[in-house]
Amino acid sequence: MIVCCLDLEGVLVPEIWIGFAEQSGIEALRRTTRDEPDYDRLMRYRLNILAERGLGLPDIERCIAGLQPLPGAREFLDWLRARWQVVILSDTFYQFARPLMAKLGWPTLFCHDLDSDASGRLTGYRLRQPDGKRRAVQALRALNFRSMAAGDSYNDTTMLAEADAGVLFRPPDSVVREFPQFPVARSYAELRAAFEQAAKSLD
Amino acid sequence: MIVCCLDLEGVLVPEIWIGFAEQSGIEALRRTTRDEPDYDRLMRYRLNILAERGLGLPDIERCIAGLQPLPGAREFLDWLRARWQVVILSDTFYQFARPLMAKLGWPTLFCHDLDSDASGRLTGYRLRQPDGKRRAVQALRALNFRSMAAGDSYNDTTMLAEADAGVLFRPPDSVVREFPQFPVARSYAELRAAFEQAAKSLD
Repeated sequence: MIVCCLDLEGVLVPEIWIGFAEQSGIEALRRTTRDEPDYDRLMRYRLNILAERGLGLPDIERCIAGLQPLPGAREFLDWLRARWQVVILSDTFYQFARPLMAKLGWPTLFCHDLDSDASGRLTGYRLRQPDGKRRAVQALRALNFRSMAAGDSYNDTTMLAEADAGVLFRPPDSVVREFPQFPVARSYAELRAAFEQAAKSLD
Repeated sequence: MIVCCLDLEGVLVPEIWIGFAEQSGIEALRRTTRDEPDYDRLMRYRLNILAERGLGLPDIERCIAGLQPLPGAREFLDWLRARWQVVILSDTFYQFARPLMAKLGWPTLFCHDLDSDASGRLTGYRLRQPDGKRRAVQALRALNFRSMAAGDSYNDTTMLAEADAGVLFRPPDSVVREFPQFPVARSYAELRAAFEQAAKSLD
């Protein structure tokens, strides 16, 4: 009995803040943890920009509705769901992911939450728990599932290590060099093959 | 951040063994835990019947492909998935549920497994864990989700009690009498209303 845990951004959909910056034309929202390593400062910076521009939840939803899953992502996900159980583990926010989840056929998503007031103005954010990806895999293993996982970046590596089988999907070279223990898939076909191979020794 | 945990049989799809008995015309498979309270004896009885008739996995899948989700189940599930995260918790087997899961748009399902040999002949069954429904809700709560749950029978009541909000869906009168603490929904419209009401105090 296998659960596949997939990172969202970079695996099934593009980077949402970057896409949002492009769709909205707000260049300042391109800032990422590479520019501001303090996540809380980065988030307060982002929420401030949205507040200054008077952008609330409905505007954000409308904007993100212009984003599309990565080419082939829906087909890959449907293939995966027909074989094993799937849970998406992400550090994004439900309010941001929602329009993309609709296009992916509403897979189960564990991520974080934005707070808003009655008018839709964003008032803050709530991280569900620290190290949430790894802890979700741990919880699924405690329910006696075997686990496979795929992600593209540093913040996925504890999840990949916790899973029975972890695969890097289109990772930057730096991550490949630093985590040579994980196999690398550069296309959905390769990721399918890696999961099929891993599943043989798991079920 | 809310996860909805739904029982499968009686909530989204008909009783699968009963449906299988009807589709296959094998009356002996109508036997349930009401007739044989020892679950392991019941399962070995069922697997023996399938073996005697030479029915393997492909025959079972073909047979179950004739079953349909309950009227309105897909629409209810899509409504639910657009609002909160959903995990189906069931005591059925993946191999039995699969054709119905396809018709429901592949929601995430935590259940049990049948073993088969290379020819598709069933050789046994594996329960993922005892009291699996309750333990799944417990695990989701430990991941800092709030939880809502719906089920129709005795074996759902520990799950309903573990959830922040539990609702009985079309339960037999005996269950309503024995568990007066749970609200009762007799249609998807009532279940939607019960979840919407509960969510107000949870999120």
